[in-house]
Amino acid sequence: FNPVFADLPETVFETMSGLARRLGAINLGQGFPDGQGPDDVRAAAARALDTVSNQYPSMMGLPSLRTAIAAHYRHHQGLDLDPEREVMVTSGATEALAGALLALVRPGDEVVLFEPMYDAYLPLVRQAGGVPRFVTLKPPHFGLDEAALAEAFTERTRVVVLNNPLNPSATVFSESDLALLAKFCCRFDAVAVCDEVWEHLVFDGRRHVPLMRLPGMRERTVKIGSAGKIFSLTGWKIGFVMACEPLMRGLSRAHQFLTFTTPPNLQEGVAYGLAKDDAYFEEMRAGFSRSRDRLAAGLTRLGFTVLPSAGTYFLSIDIGDGPEGDRAFCERMVRRHGVAAIPISAFYAEGAVRNLVRLCFAKSDVTLDAALERLAGMP
Amino acid sequence: FNPVFADLPETVFETMSGLARRLGAINLGQGFPDGQGPDDVRAAAARALDTVSNQYPSMMGLPSLRTAIAAHYRHHQGLDLDPEREVMVTSGATEALAGALLALVRPGDEVVLFEPMYDAYLPLVRQAGGVPRFVTLKPPHFGLDEAALAEAFTERTRVVVLNNPLNPSATVFSESDLALLAKFCCRFDAVAVCDEVWEHLVFDGRRHVPLMRLPGMRERTVKIGSAGKIFSLTGWKIGFVMACEPLMRGLSRAHQFLTFTTPPNLQEGVAYGLAKDDAYFEEMRAGFSRSRDRLAAGLTRLGFTVLPSAGTYFLSIDIGDGPEGDRAFCERMVRRHGVAAIPISAFYAEGAVRNLVRLCFAKSDVTLDAALERLAGMP
Ligand SMILES: CSCCC(=O)C(=O)O
Ligand SMILES: CSCCC(=O)C(=O)O
Repeated sequence: FNPVFADLPETVFETMSGLARRLGAINLGQGFPDGQGPDDVRAAAARALDTVSNQYPSMMGLPSLRTAIAAHYRHHQGLDLDPEREVMVTSGATEALAGALLALVRPGDEVVLFEPMYDAYLPLVRQAGGVPRFVTLKPPHFGLDEAALAEAFTERTRVVVLNNPLNPSATVFSESDLALLAKFCCRFDAVAVCDEVWEHLVFDGRRHVPLMRLPGMRERTVKIGSAGKIFSLTGWKIGFVMACEPLMRGLSRAHQFLTFTTPPNLQEGVAYGLAKDDAYFEEMRAGFSRSRDRLAAGLTRLGFTVLPSAGTYFLSIDIGDGPEGDRAFCERMVRRHGVAAIPISAFYAEGAVRNLVRLCFAKSDVTLDAALERLAGMP
Repeated sequence: FNPVFADLPETVFETMSGLARRLGAINLGQGFPDGQGPDDVRAAAARALDTVSNQYPSMMGLPSLRTAIAAHYRHHQGLDLDPEREVMVTSGATEALAGALLALVRPGDEVVLFEPMYDAYLPLVRQAGGVPRFVTLKPPHFGLDEAALAEAFTERTRVVVLNNPLNPSATVFSESDLALLAKFCCRFDAVAVCDEVWEHLVFDGRRHVPLMRLPGMRERTVKIGSAGKIFSLTGWKIGFVMACEPLMRGLSRAHQFLTFTTPPNLQEGVAYGLAKDDAYFEEMRAGFSRSRDRLAAGLTRLGFTVLPSAGTYFLSIDIGDGPEGDRAFCERMVRRHGVAAIPISAFYAEGAVRNLVRLCFAKSDVTLDAALERLAGMP
């Protein structure tokens, strides 16, 4: 067996969801909303099973969806993308990420990774033969600093992976952080793979700034988005890749041999959804931030120390530096209190923080209140 | 750029389909039926958008689909699979193949590939760091022979990839071919990755024999199937992987970082379809074999030399050993006569046959007749 994959544990999200199912626990672990997404988007996908061909669509994605993606990002983020040449549809953001790393990283290339990091990044970098260079971001801000970047970037740096907004810390990189990173990418001629799947989930009046918009970055950024995250339909697995044409060429070759195409009826449903008006996206954000506030207030009332959340589906609690640690805390929480969460140490390859536990607030009030009731008396 | 992917051309199927679209040609190139698959399977998938969760399903696939897969292959092929541990759902057979090769092949491992071969195999083997060892199968039978296998297998052989029924030759390996291959796999302790996506498309009373059924192969076979091919819904991208538990562990780790999960409503639609009775599958085969006969008869009438087709969606014509060659012939056919086909040399890395052109007969009578009309006068 190839040791890169075979030696890996099952992803913590799957393990925790499995445990929650078996124990009948409330699942605030894996990041998914508990609703069914917008009725009209689901209805558009159902209609498309009859009105759109169910045979292989174009490998790059349905023209209707690529056009919708370009229009959506022009309107929401001021990006100017050619739907024919600079937009590709993938079977989820995970495939987009896998394809980008397998296409861009040659054996021996260095890849800068920021910790905490989503658990797919490192195995994919290793599978591509890349050499990871970790930069550890420090709580509570999880911001960048010039000295750490100067240590991580070298002449062999080929790619840097940025997740903004950042899962699991629920932080958003500042414009000065982005400018700093852009400077390093340009200086070292590195490509930024930007996992921006949480871009629509930013709260309190914030606006997402795509790294691709920064000076010098248009030609060296691979931006990844996710319809599942935008529309609370995480099972649909429709991802977007945006990059300039010279980069896209290699990315499309990887896509062609990883999944080749993506179900057309779901693509059509997403094309419908992306055209929704600003009010829809504002109301979505407002809904999630109300849920965030409800969970945060409830946890605070129970005596937990709750960290701020600027974006994503998540907030974290600080369990302190006691001997238990975040993994044992999560074990106890799911087994004794019936609520699943994610230990943040699962997002580190080295130097893990052990005092933070992530909870998903993208749930109905009923679910959140039931979880809070179960957690009473835990802290 | 990683040269494995970046240096690749666009796949011939996509190129030909794009050309057909632009030229308004009848597309007998890429393998897909021109209908919309079974109405009731599509309706089941539409219903499931409301009745099944649209959030991340289990990484291994919906339990309902895994159970249906195990029952289906028990009934149709006598396989005894544990749906919990030996069955996995992927986002198409391409992902299944990518995951299997990336998980099984370590840098330096040798992989035996039979030519002609589907064009994804070689780039995936190379991406995994594997060393290909080609065995060229000879027309018209495209069968195995002991001397060639003895030359290809070595102590470093880790994997052999078998496509049965074989695309593009439309041949089916004999039981003695399978027994010979099984003997080599056991002797050299190799794993067989069996791309059996055409298993239901065998004609004239043939029955598909999965390599996994042969003595010694249960524990060393990764069997790959495709709902898109079974139900004429090639855009759905639902693949199946079947393997014993020790193999499945590594395969599931690759899946977890390539796509993670597959759309639940389409999985539910496929679960519904797999339970169809024998009459359904018999009628499907009968329909495709009538189409095969219609195209073969028409081409013969026009003066083409048509080779037999025992399975798949395809038949080939022999264009002779003239100076034109299969690629130029296909260019002329699509540009001057408005019919797209696939040059079989695209299925070879070396020693390509240049006198065969593949046509897809999985089309309505109207489409086939229109194509025949356009081809009159070409030979
Ligand atoms: C792909 S499962 C994980 C979903 C997610 O983004 C998370 O929980 O962090
Ligand atoms: C994935 S596109 C190719 C479909 C196919 O199997 C073929 O045409 O050979």
